[in-house]
Amino acid sequence: MKAVCLLSGGLDSATCLAWARRAGFDSYALSFDYGQRHIVELDCARRVAQALGAADHRVAKIDLRVFGHSALTDEIAVPKGRDEAAMNHGIPVTYVPARNTIFLSFALAYAEVLEASDIFIGVNALDYSGYPDCRPEFIQAFERMSNLATKAGVEGITSIHIRTPLIDLSKADIVRLGQELQVPFGLTHSCYDPDATGKPCGACDSCLLRAKGFREAGVIDPAGQ
Amino acid sequence: MKAVCLLSGGLDSATCLAWARRAGFDSYALSFDYGQRHIVELDCARRVAQALGAADHRVAKIDLRVFGHSALTDEIAVPKGRDEAAMNHGIPVTYVPARNTIFLSFALAYAEVLEASDIFIGVNALDYSGYPDCRPEFIQAFERMSNLATKAGVEGITSIHIRTPLIDLSKADIVRLGQELQVPFGLTHSCYDPDATGKPCGACDSCLLRAKGFREAGVIDPAGQ
Repeated sequence: MKAVCLLSGGLDSATCLAWARRAGFDSYALSFDYGQRHIVELDCARRVAQALGAADHRVAKIDLRVFGHSALTDEIAVPKGRDEAAMNHGIPVTYVPARNTIFLSFALAYAEVLEASDIFIGVNALDYSGYPDCRPEFIQAFERMSNLATKAGVEGITSIHIRTPLIDLSKADIVRLGQELQVPFGLTHSCYDPDATGKPCGACDSCLLRAKGFREAGVIDPAGQ
Repeated sequence: MKAVCLLSGGLDSATCLAWARRAGFDSYALSFDYGQRHIVELDCARRVAQALGAADHRVAKIDLRVFGHSALTDEIAVPKGRDEAAMNHGIPVTYVPARNTIFLSFALAYAEVLEASDIFIGVNALDYSGYPDCRPEFIQAFERMSNLATKAGVEGITSIHIRTPLIDLSKADIVRLGQELQVPFGLTHSCYDPDATGKPCGACDSCLLRAKGFREAGVIDPAGQ
């Protein structure tokens, strides 16, 4: 049983990969070099894939900067020190247009080449910080489209399932699940705006959500944020 | 009124762009440098975009070779001299996994940045040569997914329409429409396997379909294939 697992190097995607491994999938990890400001993500992804026994790990180079317009790829400042009310209000500047759509499209291409039936993505709808493409209705629509897009869909050989084991979990739930699955938390990386050495800022939305998750789960974060 | 128009440099996408222009859209052309063997396509796209008065033309660099598995990006031989029965039997080796899904995903990102409501793609279901992602049901599913994927979908500002003006046309119909819309046929390029100078092979499925289309429409192909 083969699966493609989207892997950013963060806590959520690492936990998602560990979940797929425990469920018995030969897991083919897929990361993107998309002109993100912090390439440290890709080092983390590589080490997480290895630690969790992925069958393979590919990095697809794509250029999202060609359209600009996000704090993750442009020179827009990443917001810092926001409270939850601010985080949950509207769509943040860190949103990259259609990013999950693009990532899932590449995962679909990879799944088709591998003849894999499952694609894992570590989205969650609770702490999704206002990203439209983390919602369950988006995932369902993507799955439906996938089953019409591919050879398999035409020939009826297999069908594609988009799997989101974290979709209903809070960040604390994810930390607990990750602990149970022995995710190497120390290798994961969540910060939107690390310094030149890769050290997390501790103040962006992603750092704050991660810290809260570990705190509420009663687990020490070995990445030391 | 803004639209994103996928533009390969071929006859179909050029006619589709001309259609969008006549319909009154400010048209933002989008092409891909995806490791295709014949980079001549991108030169054609650039010249077609200019000739048809596109508001802008972007080329997104993406790496589809990371997964391999198609005669358009690998070293697999492009089939030559096939008759229509052979062309219409199954999915050809020139199929690139999930290619239209990936291209439309990038178009969706670009549309979101531009706040464009329409995306044009020159697929047609008649001469689609067995590509699953040229079928109307795929296009409808992609449109539905798009309207859940984006900021606009969440905020209800605008909705995305995937427009396929060529979907029910034969190649001869497309030639006739292109002529009516004054598409610069001589700048377009359809061959899957041109020589080093860009000269079309005249024998791949795409060359044969194009020649048949011009012949049936009673139009001389100025690209001289």
